[in-house]
Amino acid sequence: MDAIDRLDRIIHEPARLKIMTRLYVVESGDFVYLARTTGLTRGNLSSHMLKLESAGYLEVIKEFVDRKPVTMLKLTDKGRQAFIEYRKNIFEVIEFSE
Amino acid sequence: MDAIDRLDRIIHEPARLKIMTRLYVVESGDFVYLARTTGLTRGNLSSHMLKLESAGYLEVIKEFVDRKPVTMLKLTDKGRQAFIEYRKNIFEVIEFSE
Repeated sequence: MDAIDRLDRIIHEPARLKIMTRLYVVESGDFVYLARTTGLTRGNLSSHMLKLESAGYLEVIKEFVDRKPVTMLKLTDKGRQAFIEYRKNIFEVIEFSE
Repeated sequence: MDAIDRLDRIIHEPARLKIMTRLYVVESGDFVYLARTTGLTRGNLSSHMLKLESAGYLEVIKEFVDRKPVTMLKLTDKGRQAFIEYRKNIFEVIEFSE
């Protein structure tokens, strides 16, 4: 089984790869900010968010800031681990074609 | 527009990424060998091959070897260029999440 077969398809999908790379470098990010910076529509972001959540990669936290509801997204430890694994594999894929 | 948006979706799909990485390191490869080493069924390989061919990334050459028909696959210059570009972009994606 080569590195491509080990690629996590949940993460490999470009929109989700985008969400994962952005959340990986922060503690958590709010939904509206994430929609704006990824360029995904809110509907699209929602559905990919659900997919990542059901894989156990993402945690959705509803908070109130100044009495306004805010949806915060945060990678779980499992999600961070899966992302590190994905990076290792995709790097291997690229390297071998050098 | 970040590196993920520049990712060539034709190449990003795992089965096609597999075909591209394998053909990138050789002059050409025959269909049967490629099916065996990628683990793709012939039907699957055929359909991805067509997709890559219609993108202008792949050339299909039918030859006779010992009077037997052989289908050879070969990346075009455009395909090699697109692959180099893909690698550059995916590397950027990974790097920025370090």
